[in-house]
Amino acid sequence: MQDKPFAASIDSTSFVPSRYDKHIVRTLSSMHGQFFDTDAYEHALHEEDRELYEVYFLERPNEIGEMACGTSILHPGKIGDEFCMTKGHFHSVMETAEVYYGLDGEGMLLMETPEGEWAAEELRPGKIVYVPPRWAHRSVNTGDKDLVVFFVFPAHTGQNYGSIEEQGFRKLVLDRGGKARIEDNPRWLPPEKRKRVEK
Amino acid sequence: MQDKPFAASIDSTSFVPSRYDKHIVRTLSSMHGQFFDTDAYEHALHEEDRELYEVYFLERPNEIGEMACGTSILHPGKIGDEFCMTKGHFHSVMETAEVYYGLDGEGMLLMETPEGEWAAEELRPGKIVYVPPRWAHRSVNTGDKDLVVFFVFPAHTGQNYGSIEEQGFRKLVLDRGGKARIEDNPRWLPPEKRKRVEK
Repeated sequence: MQDKPFAASIDSTSFVPSRYDKHIVRTLSSMHGQFFDTDAYEHALHEEDRELYEVYFLERPNEIGEMACGTSILHPGKIGDEFCMTKGHFHSVMETAEVYYGLDGEGMLLMETPEGEWAAEELRPGKIVYVPPRWAHRSVNTGDKDLVVFFVFPAHTGQNYGSIEEQGFRKLVLDRGGKARIEDNPRWLPPEKRKRVEK
Repeated sequence: MQDKPFAASIDSTSFVPSRYDKHIVRTLSSMHGQFFDTDAYEHALHEEDRELYEVYFLERPNEIGEMACGTSILHPGKIGDEFCMTKGHFHSVMETAEVYYGLDGEGMLLMETPEGEWAAEELRPGKIVYVPPRWAHRSVNTGDKDLVVFFVFPAHTGQNYGSIEEQGFRKLVLDRGGKARIEDNPRWLPPEKRKRVEK
């Protein structure tokens, strides 16, 4: 981190920034309870704890007015009929937004509020998606190559899994006869029916 | 403006977002006092008050945690030996950053602080440039086609021309034998020698 201007290049093959401060890799085992078809999940995990996605962050001080950015690379595939996806998160500072810009591949950004509103927007090259404050967000790869996005968020944001670790997102993105369909997640409960009270 | 998630597509030919809230067009006449070669500037303006650049904004409420974004399209050309450029600005809320992501063309982002520090970073497709809080920024097109960038900044930022309207940026980007060179702006004065005290 530095107080002078800085730059990084994203090459159009690997999409790895030429400089970054943090790199996270999420494998199947980090997604316990997220995929709807738990048998298919356990079976896939038994075969190999394979990499689902990686994220490169250009970090900045945790201060209002600073922004963090980076790229997220989500591999294609399915667990049962469900397309591979990121874990998704709320922001710890709920009143902060996020901007996505699609660089490669195709998919969807699933979003929801703690109160149960939901939305989905397509992700593909040249697509801007605005995630307003309070909306959790999860990327889903519905294509056959890596889904790559450039993201920017206020640096004081933080991440918070909230209800996601207990019950996933309200909606699932499933392969129905070769088409991506959005369907209800039967495990999802509205806030008033949850055991744990949202923080 | 809306409180639900929204999206826009940037097509790779025009780079105009499929939706936007504000569109500004800057012509030569809005750049009075910015180009070093004032004779060349007056001559060009006499010929035609031509368009230098346009900016499309996806706006959000002026609140901490929200972000504004959009595309800037800067046409190629020179005034005298000086490459065409944007007016550039400080942020009214000085402690706010900006993120640039190059989409097309080639050029430079010139940056400076009120105290006289300066920096320049290349702009081209796939290039991320981070403008930290307090740094004024101006794009310069050193190529032969439009320089296009995607930008994101905190929505409570505002713009402020500060010292720019009096004396331009500290550095100029000039065509020296077909190469872009950064040279001192002889009209630029350090803060202690300026007539007007910086706000």
